[in-house]
Amino acid sequence: MSLIVQKYGGTSVGTLDRIRNVAARAIKAHRAGNQVVVTVSAMSGETNRLVALVEDLSGGNYSKREYDVVVSTGEQVSIGLLAIAIESLGVPARSYQGWQVRFVTDSVHSKARILDVESEKIRADLAEGRIVVVAGFQGMDQEGSVTTLGRGGSDTSAVALAAALEADFCDIYTDVDGVYTTDPRIVPKARKLDRISYEEMLEMASLGAKVLQTRSVELAMKYNVPVRVLSSLEEGTGTLLTKEDDVMEQVVVSAIAFNRDEAQITVQGVPDKPGVAALIFGTLADANINVDMIIQNISASSGDTDVTFTVPKGDYKQALAILKEPVGRIGATNVTGNPDIAKVSVIGVGMRSHSGVARRMFKALSADNINIRMISTSEIKISVVIDEKYMELAVRTLHQAFELDKDAGDRVRD
Amino acid sequence: MSLIVQKYGGTSVGTLDRIRNVAARAIKAHRAGNQVVVTVSAMSGETNRLVALVEDLSGGNYSKREYDVVVSTGEQVSIGLLAIAIESLGVPARSYQGWQVRFVTDSVHSKARILDVESEKIRADLAEGRIVVVAGFQGMDQEGSVTTLGRGGSDTSAVALAAALEADFCDIYTDVDGVYTTDPRIVPKARKLDRISYEEMLEMASLGAKVLQTRSVELAMKYNVPVRVLSSLEEGTGTLLTKEDDVMEQVVVSAIAFNRDEAQITVQGVPDKPGVAALIFGTLADANINVDMIIQNISASSGDTDVTFTVPKGDYKQALAILKEPVGRIGATNVTGNPDIAKVSVIGVGMRSHSGVARRMFKALSADNINIRMISTSEIKISVVIDEKYMELAVRTLHQAFELDKDAGDRVRD
Repeated sequence: MSLIVQKYGGTSVGTLDRIRNVAARAIKAHRAGNQVVVTVSAMSGETNRLVALVEDLSGGNYSKREYDVVVSTGEQVSIGLLAIAIESLGVPARSYQGWQVRFVTDSVHSKARILDVESEKIRADLAEGRIVVVAGFQGMDQEGSVTTLGRGGSDTSAVALAAALEADFCDIYTDVDGVYTTDPRIVPKARKLDRISYEEMLEMASLGAKVLQTRSVELAMKYNVPVRVLSSLEEGTGTLLTKEDDVMEQVVVSAIAFNRDEAQITVQGVPDKPGVAALIFGTLADANINVDMIIQNISASSGDTDVTFTVPKGDYKQALAILKEPVGRIGATNVTGNPDIAKVSVIGVGMRSHSGVARRMFKALSADNINIRMISTSEIKISVVIDEKYMELAVRTLHQAFELDKDAGDRVRD
Repeated sequence: MSLIVQKYGGTSVGTLDRIRNVAARAIKAHRAGNQVVVTVSAMSGETNRLVALVEDLSGGNYSKREYDVVVSTGEQVSIGLLAIAIESLGVPARSYQGWQVRFVTDSVHSKARILDVESEKIRADLAEGRIVVVAGFQGMDQEGSVTTLGRGGSDTSAVALAAALEADFCDIYTDVDGVYTTDPRIVPKARKLDRISYEEMLEMASLGAKVLQTRSVELAMKYNVPVRVLSSLEEGTGTLLTKEDDVMEQVVVSAIAFNRDEAQITVQGVPDKPGVAALIFGTLADANINVDMIIQNISASSGDTDVTFTVPKGDYKQALAILKEPVGRIGATNVTGNPDIAKVSVIGVGMRSHSGVARRMFKALSADNINIRMISTSEIKISVVIDEKYMELAVRTLHQAFELDKDAGDRVRD
């Protein structure tokens, strides 16, 4: 007998019929002899409706504590309805809101972080043969106010619950049947991965593969929660997130990720003296603009250099505008930028011990005449920024270059 | 400085504009130097929408615990939005759900009764200058499950809160500007009462004057809560519910109430022996049919009698059908009935010490040729059942006969 936490998103509970389907799935796992806890999001569209009420009422200037009171009702409706659907199919069920099973969070309303989860009530219900339904996305701070975890927080709720219950599996149901070597809409030969390490998934999540929220992957890694990404539409084994050691096929490169949501900015002719970088990035931080890649070459003999970085496309114009004045003040010659770029990354825990990955990557891009604008690396990934129009070509080229369409054993090693 | 609990129904918070109006009203009382707690219902239509989700999903067969989880979200949305609206007008506010301020109830889901209310959190917020917004209609049982109080429970929430806080006033905002001597749509000369005793209000509420829920009046009487019925549409002093001793104008008759929601049933030729009434009313009770008036005359020399009573019109046909068999078994000759009746009542705490009320009532009805089918009395009311078609005439006649359109001092006394 296993203890399984299942998580279903808003689309999966978007209509009463779909709620019945989720109920049937939970019951199937229950009848197979497992203890089942289900975490659900709000019915699709509901959170947007509630947010619109708050925005329309206040014109955008509102207490986030009260925002959380309103918005958390979406999940509350879902859990009540799902518990009713499960019981109407003959299995006893009970729903809990975040505060009832003590999802204790900090007090950062609308994007709270989970501090602790009490699992006693849930364990007692499971022992009595119930399916337990828990509201995702919400918790309670230490003063007893309702909090929400921010968009996508339901994934995090599910993983936190699985960690607290020491669940055998945390099954995240999505509209895809697992994690792929890259997006199958771009590379039809993309293969589903049976397993992927937390580290690789984390890079993929933060690089724009929208299967799982980054926070939930971090939490899963921290508590070693066996997360499975499964399809809510069809049966399948999905993709298991696991520790690096448990990934059986030790391949060098696991996947190709990409992201076209960023823009590039270059500050030209920056004098080589202390405090300059702090001024540039402090200005952006004050405006709440996140910076992703940052590249600064060693100063040339001229005594000045260029600093290049990427920001979200939506913040591009504002970033250019607010940098003009401080950048002029420090004597930089110009600020230029390009919103039409994309980032393509090669990811794999195996590349730690293999030096040939960069060479193969750059060679493949060069063969297709794709110009590399920026390069950034971490232990398990190499990212390049290129012109956006070449993005799909680059993804296909790299997928083929690293033979990701083949079984790991059949690939050529450097 | 007074402590005031205000209650607004679903219509008063039915749109964002109306929520802003409620916020403005609460702030007006706050700026006048009062401590203000506001209780609100769900936005109009919202509770029905949520109930429909539950009904459609389950076909009517559902856990009432989960029903409460879903349906209580309506008030939760209202309190969050109202708190935001108040803050956007410049006054700090904080919202609380039933469980947060410990509206402890029994576990009778969907119609729970309030056992206790903790007022500490609310007092602390008031002391800090906040307007406190509390969800009506909901609470938490002793196991920590969400409960709801049933339709109209928000009035009861407001009164319970006022009792716990020892509020100076519990202001119930409605779509009328107070309690009238009778329905002004029937008698244009009907006068608004400045004060009415709890006992009289209780008779009026249970007799079909739909201004306040009976339960809330009972609770107000028990804890001596000064309830004011006020209009949410216009300024005014409304009607104050108070102890009998505090009603300054000691009039004999205060108001005329009426009710056309009942039907009359007569069991004819009932043998005069023990157990017969128990059989009749036991049969109705088993079918969850409420009986209101019951009349049985002293047996005539024949040894049998007629038993007449009233039931809700919606239960009339079922009541007739289920009585046929047991009534035949005990030897009664027939069951007949009439759904086209109405009940008209004269109410007044002063009639305890005045014998002339019944005489004046019957004389007035007789002068208009209105036949009385049944009579029932309590300490402070006399009710008659008449043909429904004469109801409006009877109400007008009685309103005039007791000179309710005049100031109390100008009336003729018996």
